[in-house]
Amino acid sequence: MCISIMLPGVGVFGTGQTVRTLVPLLQKEGFPVPAVWGHMQEEAESLANELDIPFSTSQTDDVLLHPEVHLVCILTPPPHTRQIAVKALGIGKNVISDQAATLTDACKMVTAARYYPQLMSIMGNSLRFLPAFVHMKHLLGEGYCGTLQVCEARVYGGSLLSQSYGWAWEELMGGGGLHKVGSCIIDLLSHLTGRRAMQVHGILRTFVRQGGPGGGIRSVTADDYACFQLQMSGGVVCSVTLNFNLPGTDLHEVMLVGSSGRLIARGTELYGQRINMQVEELLLNDDGGTRGGVGPSVSGLNAMVTQLRLSFQAQEDRRSWARHPVSMAATFEDGLYVQTVVDAIKRSNRTGEWESVEVKIQDIDPNHNHRTLLN
Amino acid sequence: MCISIMLPGVGVFGTGQTVRTLVPLLQKEGFPVPAVWGHMQEEAESLANELDIPFSTSQTDDVLLHPEVHLVCILTPPPHTRQIAVKALGIGKNVISDQAATLTDACKMVTAARYYPQLMSIMGNSLRFLPAFVHMKHLLGEGYCGTLQVCEARVYGGSLLSQSYGWAWEELMGGGGLHKVGSCIIDLLSHLTGRRAMQVHGILRTFVRQGGPGGGIRSVTADDYACFQLQMSGGVVCSVTLNFNLPGTDLHEVMLVGSSGRLIARGTELYGQRINMQVEELLLNDDGGTRGGVGPSVSGLNAMVTQLRLSFQAQEDRRSWARHPVSMAATFEDGLYVQTVVDAIKRSNRTGEWESVEVKIQDIDPNHNHRTLLN
Repeated sequence: MCISIMLPGVGVFGTGQTVRTLVPLLQKEGFPVPAVWGHMQEEAESLANELDIPFSTSQTDDVLLHPEVHLVCILTPPPHTRQIAVKALGIGKNVISDQAATLTDACKMVTAARYYPQLMSIMGNSLRFLPAFVHMKHLLGEGYCGTLQVCEARVYGGSLLSQSYGWAWEELMGGGGLHKVGSCIIDLLSHLTGRRAMQVHGILRTFVRQGGPGGGIRSVTADDYACFQLQMSGGVVCSVTLNFNLPGTDLHEVMLVGSSGRLIARGTELYGQRINMQVEELLLNDDGGTRGGVGPSVSGLNAMVTQLRLSFQAQEDRRSWARHPVSMAATFEDGLYVQTVVDAIKRSNRTGEWESVEVKIQDIDPNHNHRTLLN
Repeated sequence: MCISIMLPGVGVFGTGQTVRTLVPLLQKEGFPVPAVWGHMQEEAESLANELDIPFSTSQTDDVLLHPEVHLVCILTPPPHTRQIAVKALGIGKNVISDQAATLTDACKMVTAARYYPQLMSIMGNSLRFLPAFVHMKHLLGEGYCGTLQVCEARVYGGSLLSQSYGWAWEELMGGGGLHKVGSCIIDLLSHLTGRRAMQVHGILRTFVRQGGPGGGIRSVTADDYACFQLQMSGGVVCSVTLNFNLPGTDLHEVMLVGSSGRLIARGTELYGQRINMQVEELLLNDDGGTRGGVGPSVSGLNAMVTQLRLSFQAQEDRRSWARHPVSMAATFEDGLYVQTVVDAIKRSNRTGEWESVEVKIQDIDPNHNHRTLLN
């Protein structure tokens, strides 16, 4: 295994479920994971014990400056994301990051990524790596659907709220289905279609306002239902429905409809039906090498880690990486686009109007208030 | 069969597919069908031969004044509907009617229905009679879902266009998925929930503008894709997607989501899942007595005809009817509400804004232009 010796050490930020999934996948591919950061020292320690990570801390610098950390994975609560990402790039570490909390943060991340073009700076939307979507994009490009008309995406599931009060309850801290799940779908739709939203319209609702017994008098502001439409360039219409009041359901469906056929990803499986076919054909049944039933996010994460290995292996040092294996990843610029769309949907929910999507790096008002009106 | 002797003779207007389905169902239940009207004499004759109807004509009065016709079923192109319905009521016939073409027409039908309250005047939306929706409404009323939050409806299928140019191509003549199928869904959602839309927002598209070789230079104006949201009283959100660019698909799904469970009708089957259940339960698998696979419209039609028999049988004469068996039917007032919502969705598609739904019987401007802008 002399190849894997050259893989970079990964410093992980965050203690949530995605970290619990990601770290074993990294270790399986041969990435050392020498350090983990958590907001609370005990959480970090407990996670480190559980996942066999030698070092844990609640000080971000302890991970960022760790001599064996060359790649940083940021899976923190969104309000922490920007600060860690910008600092990591500033001290020469490669970065994979979740969506930041605000447009201002997304802009600062883009500025940092542009300033260090040789460093890896990619968004952690693993759906782009899921074989079903890789194949979907390929078939779309080959003309399977003809002229694209409509994209539909639906994600249904149980509550995204934490048991006790936390950022997931707060819309302003990046909580809610639109920010957490909608961001990945918005990014995926632009990736698959090669088009971006020009105008958006949406409804957001918080049907469950009381998060649980640990919440006390605090009320949930993060959305648990979102229904939005994107008018993409070229006349393509995207319609997305997210509903997290459906415990016991785990639906993740993306459908592209064109003039001569359609492609449908259900979970990790890809189906298609050309206009002259009587029934759907199964085009791909791939759970990304993991055992069945893990869902598109985890399977995508698995595929992403494999591509990361391919990017880093056979390089001269632990900091170098090849671009091709991760060329399908979302850049920080894509992350800024996604955050711009998310903000426009929140604006549309307030105004009731179609809102334009204008991706701008400058003139960000840091005091802009993103709070959604009560509904 | 002395009961069926008292069933009224049914005069049928129209020569389309629904007529071909309805007439055998009527005959099976014991209704005589003595007369059929078609826009073209040959069409009417051909249909009469096919369905064993003794008399055919292209003159509406010939059916309306036929001495053996006591009940009139109007399944014509929408521009003919109002005239026939109003005239039929005026000469004392009971009426079942499809949606008219315009708001003005819907108003005139309501005025006529109010003027003859003893006559039957119901809309032909057969979905209200489908056992899956009858049971869904019952369970919703019993509290299966808890506090209702969201309704979602999706109907996917192949083109609604006729081979050669006709009303189905023209938005102004009542063509398009929103008018033809959306009307039934809008009506069903208000029936199931007991709520009406206060504000609506929608996107309409005509992706297929060339209808076929018989169309010459004529361009289709009727929508083949509709995506709209209804804000109902009590904070309930309805989201409806209709797509008729999906040949080979036949999806008809209505889901109600509440605080403690959900109900989902897929085709003619009803499923449910309370919040504490691990998996969905099949609550009803009923195709309305017809052979399997006929779909919700036909099964609903079958159930509707049975209720009509129950309404008319055991009455003293062929004109009398009992209200209870058809109490779940949509009234002409419901038809006016539906047309008001349809018009508001078309307006929203033009303005891009949420449009209020204000059901008004007066002050209808007969020159109001309903044309949808090109997209």
